[in-house]
Amino acid sequence: MEALKIAPTEKFKERVAKLLNPRSIAVIGASEKPEKLGNAILRNIVSGYKGEVFGVNPRVKKIQEIEVYPDVFSLPYPVDLAVIVLPAEKAVVALKEAAEAGVKSAVVISGGFKETGNEGALLEEEIKKIALDFEMPVLGPNCVGIVNNNLQLNATFLRTAPLKGEIAFVSQSGAILSTVLEWSLKEDLGFSYMISMGNKAVLNEADFLPAIANDPGTAVILLYIEDVVEGSSFLKKAYEASLLKPVVVFKAGISTAGAKAASSHTGALAGSIEGYKLAFAKTGLIRAKTLEEMFIYARVFASGQKVTGKNIGIVTNSGGPGVITADRLELNGLNITGLSAKTINELKTFLPRAASFGNPVDILGDADEEKYAMTLKTVLDDEKVDGVVAVYGKTAVIDMEKMVQAVINGRRKNPDKPVVACFLGGVDSRRAKELLNKNKIPFYSFPEAAADALAVLYRYYSWREKQKEGKTEFSFDDIDRKLAREIIKNALVEGRRNLTGYETAEVLKAFGFPVLPVKLVRNVQELRKAIEEISFPLALKIVSPDLLHKSDVGGVALNIKNEQEAIRAYQKMILEVPKKVPEAKILGVEVQKQIAPGLEIFIGANRDPVFGPILAFGLGGIYVNLLNDIALRLNYKFTREEALEMIKETKVYEIIKGYRGQKAYDLKIIQEILGRLSLFLEEIPEIKEIDFNPVFVYEKGALIIDAKVVLAGHNI
Amino acid sequence: MEALKIAPTEKFKERVAKLLNPRSIAVIGASEKPEKLGNAILRNIVSGYKGEVFGVNPRVKKIQEIEVYPDVFSLPYPVDLAVIVLPAEKAVVALKEAAEAGVKSAVVISGGFKETGNEGALLEEEIKKIALDFEMPVLGPNCVGIVNNNLQLNATFLRTAPLKGEIAFVSQSGAILSTVLEWSLKEDLGFSYMISMGNKAVLNEADFLPAIANDPGTAVILLYIEDVVEGSSFLKKAYEASLLKPVVVFKAGISTAGAKAASSHTGALAGSIEGYKLAFAKTGLIRAKTLEEMFIYARVFASGQKVTGKNIGIVTNSGGPGVITADRLELNGLNITGLSAKTINELKTFLPRAASFGNPVDILGDADEEKYAMTLKTVLDDEKVDGVVAVYGKTAVIDMEKMVQAVINGRRKNPDKPVVACFLGGVDSRRAKELLNKNKIPFYSFPEAAADALAVLYRYYSWREKQKEGKTEFSFDDIDRKLAREIIKNALVEGRRNLTGYETAEVLKAFGFPVLPVKLVRNVQELRKAIEEISFPLALKIVSPDLLHKSDVGGVALNIKNEQEAIRAYQKMILEVPKKVPEAKILGVEVQKQIAPGLEIFIGANRDPVFGPILAFGLGGIYVNLLNDIALRLNYKFTREEALEMIKETKVYEIIKGYRGQKAYDLKIIQEILGRLSLFLEEIPEIKEIDFNPVFVYEKGALIIDAKVVLAGHNI
Repeated sequence: MEALKIAPTEKFKERVAKLLNPRSIAVIGASEKPEKLGNAILRNIVSGYKGEVFGVNPRVKKIQEIEVYPDVFSLPYPVDLAVIVLPAEKAVVALKEAAEAGVKSAVVISGGFKETGNEGALLEEEIKKIALDFEMPVLGPNCVGIVNNNLQLNATFLRTAPLKGEIAFVSQSGAILSTVLEWSLKEDLGFSYMISMGNKAVLNEADFLPAIANDPGTAVILLYIEDVVEGSSFLKKAYEASLLKPVVVFKAGISTAGAKAASSHTGALAGSIEGYKLAFAKTGLIRAKTLEEMFIYARVFASGQKVTGKNIGIVTNSGGPGVITADRLELNGLNITGLSAKTINELKTFLPRAASFGNPVDILGDADEEKYAMTLKTVLDDEKVDGVVAVYGKTAVIDMEKMVQAVINGRRKNPDKPVVACFLGGVDSRRAKELLNKNKIPFYSFPEAAADALAVLYRYYSWREKQKEGKTEFSFDDIDRKLAREIIKNALVEGRRNLTGYETAEVLKAFGFPVLPVKLVRNVQELRKAIEEISFPLALKIVSPDLLHKSDVGGVALNIKNEQEAIRAYQKMILEVPKKVPEAKILGVEVQKQIAPGLEIFIGANRDPVFGPILAFGLGGIYVNLLNDIALRLNYKFTREEALEMIKETKVYEIIKGYRGQKAYDLKIIQEILGRLSLFLEEIPEIKEIDFNPVFVYEKGALIIDAKVVLAGHNI
Repeated sequence: MEALKIAPTEKFKERVAKLLNPRSIAVIGASEKPEKLGNAILRNIVSGYKGEVFGVNPRVKKIQEIEVYPDVFSLPYPVDLAVIVLPAEKAVVALKEAAEAGVKSAVVISGGFKETGNEGALLEEEIKKIALDFEMPVLGPNCVGIVNNNLQLNATFLRTAPLKGEIAFVSQSGAILSTVLEWSLKEDLGFSYMISMGNKAVLNEADFLPAIANDPGTAVILLYIEDVVEGSSFLKKAYEASLLKPVVVFKAGISTAGAKAASSHTGALAGSIEGYKLAFAKTGLIRAKTLEEMFIYARVFASGQKVTGKNIGIVTNSGGPGVITADRLELNGLNITGLSAKTINELKTFLPRAASFGNPVDILGDADEEKYAMTLKTVLDDEKVDGVVAVYGKTAVIDMEKMVQAVINGRRKNPDKPVVACFLGGVDSRRAKELLNKNKIPFYSFPEAAADALAVLYRYYSWREKQKEGKTEFSFDDIDRKLAREIIKNALVEGRRNLTGYETAEVLKAFGFPVLPVKLVRNVQELRKAIEEISFPLALKIVSPDLLHKSDVGGVALNIKNEQEAIRAYQKMILEVPKKVPEAKILGVEVQKQIAPGLEIFIGANRDPVFGPILAFGLGGIYVNLLNDIALRLNYKFTREEALEMIKETKVYEIIKGYRGQKAYDLKIIQEILGRLSLFLEEIPEIKEIDFNPVFVYEKGALIIDAKVVLAGHNI
């Protein structure tokens, strides 16, 4: 089924803001029976929300002081938000009536849509149509609802309300939403928003990211998704959001089995996990690979701490956990910095001789909280230190609250350097947790989690820093787009998905790729003429749309050294190929110069169903799949810098820059081919797949030796 | 400092058993002051232990009904175990007295030894000496003590006692020991043993593994180590233990910074992390990469569940978490099996139409506990299913205890198939936890953890199954060990660490490696004679112990096609090399046949300080380091099967077996070279490092083209 696409108009966007921050709400399907969702939601809304609330239900007049109207048209005025809790078919009718009555936005809680099969999917299409016709944003269907703690609004049927805080959570799964809620209650962490997207019929992550990223009450956005509906819109919004706030994303359905399961339960789109990874990397989204990682990241970002460098100090009162912390920080690419002599001398004035003055600084198990605080302060004072992991293994000497106070005190003078705490075995005192949260110190039960937290902080802030660097788009003034399009069009008109070698060469030439001049000849006379223009040795190849493996049928002749050999090879080919494959249509023979071997690289692309073309670069030749030395990037807003970056990511780069004293190869031409390929894919959306393998790279210049272009057909 | 090694005699081993299961204990340094460790330990011991307990302290007569003696000689009889809690120097004196008095074993709790510096290290040497002289096993020093819950014995100063259960924990870190204890109390899990090894002066993991692996009260052994003291003994004991029980190991100090920190706090030996990984793989030890993973594994193994196949079913009441479980199982190499038609039909009789009947089976959020139990039972009944992950997201419909009962009931008929439960957000009712533990159902808060648990179960039991397969040792009857030893000895006598090319060829020939016949010639006459025996084309190489890069100084001539060219090349070499490197001693020129190119592979070895030689195999040539397509194995008990396995692990294996229709190479000869190398390293322990790169492999046969042998010197 083709998705109805809603191009968000200004009116639509304004109404999304109303959905997130409504001044008035009507619960359609409000119920007076406590066991009904229509009652639970109403109760939750009125429990804190200060705006006007109405009920809609033809059989009741009032529910707990709330006025109930027989239908949406009878409401005193068109509310900002309708929350619809009715069986699927009735919900669609109610949605349409609400739209007609001028209601600005809606949340459809009801299930019974796409997730239940074809009939439900048809009903869901109606929701989309109403949204489109009335420019009305709709959340859901099949969702838990929405929380906006800035307004003390809980328009969900959750049995417990989230605390107020600075985490925004946007989830495609209701069960994960309640899991996150439970975790947050245990950990005393609060939310600004909780948005349950359900089936994402109309509104999806791309609609919410801009609004939430600009909310001053939100420090971090968590995103749980099983699919992305609109690839390029997601890329744009995710990038813009990441520049403002850390956005942590958990993507479920990354395995074959998982993707299948996801698609069966929400009808999620199958994009490749590679596409998602590239999308997250491109937009600065921080991927949590487990739910627990999501919690670890949420806590550290919610603390609002920042880090500017990768040199980390470790303060510990127990050896083993200090070692584990160092292991994990290093694994994460951070640096266990050497401390300055000044710091070490200072530490020696108050720590016992048996303490470790390296990094980790081990103050030993019998140290009291004062020593701990002084050590932390001293290490934070060190100019070489960008942040500290404070590790504490419970001892008889310090109790938990004193210890917490020690960390807070130790940090007091250096509030700009991050401190992440690890209390081995967890913080079991509620008061201690409150203290830590109040003082914005993220805390964990495991050294690995604390190290991961500091590492993700560094990853995010260094990514943000990197965005300030210049980005150069590719542009070429020697591209003949018209010619290229004509060739492609011609192939499509003939119903072909593959280009002939000749067409491929022509289309690549039109886009300025470095290809050998190729002449198509159809008789000996034309061959003689071609030979005049191309110097020996030559290669001849048969041209036929029906032959993929030409050498197998005698359709390739190499190393031709003179005219006589050329003519003989030509005649043999023309004679013998049709004998072997009588059904193949022969268009002629290509003549080209036989080339000198160069470094073999691979450049190619294919198209991800969600995020569009993915560019590939790596070691070429027959072992390309075997060695799998390939770097990938999305073509979306592909820059010169990214091209260079992807080349540098591979092992073949070591050879390109001159491996162990050998000569270096032309890096710039590779970058340029990637750039031209990027434009090519943008200009010719009919290309489904393209492979240059091998490309011979020389000290100066390069040549695409073999190219394959596969078209997707007319209607892409 | 050279470590004193104790070869465990029968007497020593018997006494280790006494240390673990003492019938009588004396606390030396027993104290009547509650704040002293000497009091805490005594209190902990008498709180449960039924054997005889004495105190030793010259200043007290009795502590809480316990008889206290002025010295160890005054005790009524030599006890099985002395627990020593005195300052370091006094502890050493007390240990010696205890040994002299006939006490069988000791735990030295006291710190102040190796971990504090040189003086402490000297004191620790004395402990080793006493242990050696008296064949007395000593635990510690610098440790928390020992718990044996089979005897209700808690000989530690821990403030809380561990519950009784089936986990044995052996730890090099006291802080980690108490962290594990805290976790276990929260989770209602119990221990058979807790052993704090401290500085491991005398006893280490290799001593405890056999005893604990044979304990019927222990289901799983957890091991926290920062180093391994005796590599080969560890390998033997770890393998034997793994055959009996799952052994989960956490190795700290795996990064540069971490290893440095570990060495500074316990003086841990720096073995390579690669060596540890190979050792764990070889012996079936299950490596936990984080502390949390250790807990996850501990719980599933403590349940005693087993699994015989990799086909897993998922039962869930919420979609998202089901997807995450499927993702993680697949990532772990397990198979989300298709259910049989019978199962699906059965499920359809009681589940609603909107449920998912694939795998995961999603019974939807409104299902009650009865439906859950029936679904679980039905899926477990399926012959295609080897085990199930039962996922439960909290709903209003089922409460936690009912849900727990549903899992227990659902499993009742299939107790031999494992069921791992995931209760999203955790099990917060103590009664529910008790029920789960009592019914041996491991449970987790996160789907990823549950999937990891089932996966580790499969990993362990399939490893154990695999051990039943035949193992074939390499043996060759064409090896001239004597000649090889002589050549090596000769080089060592001359103080050299490198062998000349000629020596290398000779020594390899002696061990039956496929090398080219090489003739050493010192004049034109000898050259002429050599030429008669070797066919053209030839290669000449200068022989000098002082030249590593011979071609740089004109010391290599290739492609020599006749006698005239050979003589010219010889004379030029002999004349010009000394001009360029006058200080180099020239021993002559090697003559060999110039060889045909083959597939370039790499075979080599180096020596790990802890676990001995590590064998390496992979793609060869100049890109060996770049592509890093290398498989490694310990040489310890290296078998034919392992050789084949390591070849198959690499990408180059794809080429060896005939890549994409190309010819295949001689697999057997590679296996044989690895086997000969293995024996070579065993026979000649002076070899520190050896590289064959490249080895040319042909369709039939192989040739070692270039070989480097580095010796470690006399005293290895």
